[in-house]
Amino acid sequence: MKEMPSVIDSEVFLAFSTYATIVVLKMMLMSPMTAYFRFTRKCFANMEDTGMAKTPEDKKRMLRVDPDVERVRRCHQNDLENIIPFVVIGLLYTLTGPDLSTALLHFRVFVVSRLFHTVAYVLPLPQPSRGLAWMVGMGATFSMAYRVLSTTHL
Amino acid sequence: MKEMPSVIDSEVFLAFSTYATIVVLKMMLMSPMTAYFRFTRKCFANMEDTGMAKTPEDKKRMLRVDPDVERVRRCHQNDLENIIPFVVIGLLYTLTGPDLSTALLHFRVFVVSRLFHTVAYVLPLPQPSRGLAWMVGMGATFSMAYRVLSTTHL
Amino acid sequence: MKEMPSVIDSEVFLAFSTYATIVVLKMMLMSPMTAYFRFTRKCFANMEDTGMAKTPEDKKRMLRVDPDVERVRRCHQNDLENIIPFVVIGLLYTLTGPDLSTALLHFRVFVVSRLFHTVAYVLPLPQPSRGLAWMVGMGATFSMAYRVLSTTHL
Repeated sequence: MKEMPSVIDSEVFLAFSTYATIVVLKMMLMSPMTAYFRFTRKCFANMEDTGMAKTPEDKKRMLRVDPDVERVRRCHQNDLENIIPFVVIGLLYTLTGPDLSTALLHFRVFVVSRLFHTVAYVLPLPQPSRGLAWMVGMGATFSMAYRVLSTTHL
Repeated sequence: MKEMPSVIDSEVFLAFSTYATIVVLKMMLMSPMTAYFRFTRKCFANMEDTGMAKTPEDKKRMLRVDPDVERVRRCHQNDLENIIPFVVIGLLYTLTGPDLSTALLHFRVFVVSRLFHTVAYVLPLPQPSRGLAWMVGMGATFSMAYRVLSTTHL
Repeated sequence: MKEMPSVIDSEVFLAFSTYATIVVLKMMLMSPMTAYFRFTRKCFANMEDTGMAKTPEDKKRMLRVDPDVERVRRCHQNDLENIIPFVVIGLLYTLTGPDLSTALLHFRVFVVSRLFHTVAYVLPLPQPSRGLAWMVGMGATFSMAYRVLSTTHL
């Protein structure tokens, strides 16, 4: 890989690449989890998805809102709202050339906080476990954003 | 463009850049499509958007949920949940230095699957066309994520 | 930072880095704003979030939809639908090597339009202020996408 610029060969970039992929894959797995709950709860959003029903009445009955499905969807939405900012700001942070140990601390705190957030949301665990997980993840992203803004200029 | 590092001049990066832009533009076009259905169906989410109504009763009647608008919005949400992971993982995959032909295969399969997904969702086409399109797109992203994780290290 | 490739040291990249971080931070602040409205309106989506209630009846009464909370959430969703495409296409645009002044114009128009969009949505201001802010932001992103597509090839 001689054509790679050194920043991309750097250990910080490789660490970012790995942790960003892990946390984005975790986010993507919320889609199959939603599908699983939709099929087991027989609860769909589109008429064409109710093919397993035998009568038109059954079809209509499957077009409903289920609390378990909605819980998984809220968790997925929270992932979109938090993981994507982490990926964007984490990439810019990586390019500011931070220490490997500081960068790893940020990436690991964020990824662990979001894995715990998902468990706390889906089970659910009693509050404030989910709230704290959310705040820790936000804190890691804000800390990286601070470095990006203080090493660049308008 | 002599200041460009070679990875960014590479054909894989140029291909990623083009396909990512196409698929993000497709996602962005869901917003005007939602606006189009909101205006033609006279169905809005905010009181200040009902300026075309003449009486207060008409305004209130326009604050409603319309099945066609909701269908386009669900398609848009599914795009957010699938296209953004493709862009993130696709960029990291591009930086691992894959073969051009393998990379093009991944990018083209994903983009075609999402274009077909939108058609299948909005018309709608009978299932499992939309479900299969969604799975093919997920598969392309998972395949790129596998390469990212196997060529980096924690 | 001698190991940085020159594209990343470039002034366009530093400008992108700053404006992208600002607008992503703005988007992230919609989460605490939603939390603020949820607590002051006593309106939650999850049973485990209603710990401040004293009786089971109070808990159930807090599981409701509040128009102020929904307004902030729609603003947050609109940010996801617009700011993330800006970040993706803005990064690719930055790597095409545009003039600094042209790039700054795109970034500043976008960031100002989204700050104004949030004010127009949350207060709310009368239409078409929010609609125009949304269109100006879309225009800036489309203009950058045009340059990305015309300087790359399939």
